[in-house]
Amino acid sequence: MPHFNPLVAKLSPPPVPSVLAWAQAYDGAKGPLIDLSQAVPGYPAHPDMLRWLGEAAAAPVYTGYGPIEGEPELRSAYADQVATLYGAPIAAGNVHITSGCNQAFICAAMAIASAGDTVLMTNPYYFNQETTLAMLGINVELAPCDAGAGFLPEVDTIASALRPGVRALALVSPNNPTGAVYPADLLQRIYEVCRANGAWLILDETYRDFLPDAAVAPHRLLQTEGWQDGFIGLYSFSKSFCIPGHRLGAITAGPAVVEQMTKIMDNLQICAPRSAQAAVAKAIPALADWRLANRAEIAARANALKDVMSRLPQWKLQAIGAYFAYVRHPFRDIDSQFVAEKLAKLAGIVCLPGDYFGEGQESYLRFAFANADVPTIMKLEERLSGFALPGI
Amino acid sequence: MPHFNPLVAKLSPPPVPSVLAWAQAYDGAKGPLIDLSQAVPGYPAHPDMLRWLGEAAAAPVYTGYGPIEGEPELRSAYADQVATLYGAPIAAGNVHITSGCNQAFICAAMAIASAGDTVLMTNPYYFNQETTLAMLGINVELAPCDAGAGFLPEVDTIASALRPGVRALALVSPNNPTGAVYPADLLQRIYEVCRANGAWLILDETYRDFLPDAAVAPHRLLQTEGWQDGFIGLYSFSKSFCIPGHRLGAITAGPAVVEQMTKIMDNLQICAPRSAQAAVAKAIPALADWRLANRAEIAARANALKDVMSRLPQWKLQAIGAYFAYVRHPFRDIDSQFVAEKLAKLAGIVCLPGDYFGEGQESYLRFAFANADVPTIMKLEERLSGFALPGI
Repeated sequence: MPHFNPLVAKLSPPPVPSVLAWAQAYDGAKGPLIDLSQAVPGYPAHPDMLRWLGEAAAAPVYTGYGPIEGEPELRSAYADQVATLYGAPIAAGNVHITSGCNQAFICAAMAIASAGDTVLMTNPYYFNQETTLAMLGINVELAPCDAGAGFLPEVDTIASALRPGVRALALVSPNNPTGAVYPADLLQRIYEVCRANGAWLILDETYRDFLPDAAVAPHRLLQTEGWQDGFIGLYSFSKSFCIPGHRLGAITAGPAVVEQMTKIMDNLQICAPRSAQAAVAKAIPALADWRLANRAEIAARANALKDVMSRLPQWKLQAIGAYFAYVRHPFRDIDSQFVAEKLAKLAGIVCLPGDYFGEGQESYLRFAFANADVPTIMKLEERLSGFALPGI
Repeated sequence: MPHFNPLVAKLSPPPVPSVLAWAQAYDGAKGPLIDLSQAVPGYPAHPDMLRWLGEAAAAPVYTGYGPIEGEPELRSAYADQVATLYGAPIAAGNVHITSGCNQAFICAAMAIASAGDTVLMTNPYYFNQETTLAMLGINVELAPCDAGAGFLPEVDTIASALRPGVRALALVSPNNPTGAVYPADLLQRIYEVCRANGAWLILDETYRDFLPDAAVAPHRLLQTEGWQDGFIGLYSFSKSFCIPGHRLGAITAGPAVVEQMTKIMDNLQICAPRSAQAAVAKAIPALADWRLANRAEIAARANALKDVMSRLPQWKLQAIGAYFAYVRHPFRDIDSQFVAEKLAKLAGIVCLPGDYFGEGQESYLRFAFANADVPTIMKLEERLSGFALPGI
């Protein structure tokens, strides 16, 4: 029997493929599958996006190695976007392009912490952040987010968890899995408590382009004096441009952080794939209106889901925002993994069980509602109201 | 002052960009720049390759997330290629696609070792493998490869270095930086000594497609009973298909290793970029003849360099093979970094100093000759013979 790194060997297999396997066991009896499992947009990429991707991929210039930090035009275009959204002087030197946001997270984590250090996360959490830290031997401590508080972290809880040796707090807002949107004031107070305790704040804002109002900055952290020494922002181009298969993400950070990230990225994969970077650099300004329309569409889906759930008192919509809803299922003392499996196989509704996202999440399911259009979401009412667990 | 992970903070900046900066300081006085710095092919990708890359990147089907292990068609096509080359029953389940070979290495290293473990490498070594292990907190021990032995590792040296706690030996053949090609018998004996000591053999064969004879298997390890429990092979599509900017590599391993890699890759970046995978799956069978022609071209470049160096007795060609030559410079007691900088700035010859590749390498320079065509290589004679260090 071969011996593996025990930190990796003890990780569970990646959850999404196993959930998709449940979906494949659905016989179609209730109608077409409703896939609320993966955080992917349920509409296609813009035709211009596809054309730019194709043109850049066929161009000889992008076959060679590129700058580790990312293509200059993408770093600039993304910096401009961030600067405008947050009203802050963000420049290309504040941006490091990565191959997706999971990679942005591992780069940020490695820049700050090594095996034996501690990083604080919320409970529930985004599972890849937890497994990333675990496989690096970084200790994870959890700050509970209660349903009663809308799954928002509490400043006092975080302050008391930030003992010496905690190198960073990792947050996701709008949150995955709960959908909770952390208010700017809360983020500011959390940042200050992190700074006071010498801990970095790593904030994953992959879903921020789906907040209802494009004109409102999600926080003021990038306007805060000295943010470069305490804050790292993470982002994904996958959701906003409907191109997860092209694997592009970004960090926003101080130049000293970018310098550390460059050393890590050189070892991880030298540079993110280049031709998609060139295409996204064009798309950021050119597809601004298209993205605004998508923001409205996703908001409409959220409203449709709220409407449906209001007529399903057994299924409690505990939180909702941006891409996700966090739903309490009606089966007391039944594990969410069992419920999710049966929902997929018997009702053709695929979602992720709360168990995947932390401790004590057995009562919850994550609905990635962005993946389904409004008519599909409306179909949830009949399927959920008629759903019963076999033998329960 | 922000506090970073000391394992990352103490890494040197990635070497290639700093060397390219020396090149930019060259004034052209001796003629066009001769770039022997980066291990990239000096000829373009095949037009069909570019067309397939463009078509796949523009296709909606590859915008979504794909299988973590890689696109099934690429895993199959690559498995077929490996099976044919090594005369071994390699199937798609033995292949995990990565975003380049650096990523294949970090995945392999993490599957086997964690912080505090030890991995054995040769000296000299490929620097990204050393920095990867260092940033993970994995201890690196070095088995010296002497110039007198053609920079081949010695079985006895490795056997005595493989004390308990050494989790793996990492080798590169054809070697980067020296160009040394490890004979199949030597690799077999090294593998057996690793197995006897409970250590994995990780073999990076990024440059194997540029060995002179396409019909000769580089080793018999994949035919060896139980290889799945002791061997991991690494490969890059960058060099053979001239597409480093698209970031694709692969591992060949037992299914249990692939399973561990999948968990790691999910955290690192979910999956390698998809559209390029689809294009390479087509190219593996379709561009076989083109790759054979490139193999011959690179061999002609090696011969040209041997010819040139034979007329430069002050510059000793210490080893050569596949993509690289390892050259002893004539300046006794002068550090290779100083020599390489002056060669770039004054003579327009860009190469990497031996210092970057390990301990006691001050006398050597790495010439990545694959990057220059034969007429360009011939120009090295005049430039090198006329080269003097200022003030020496």
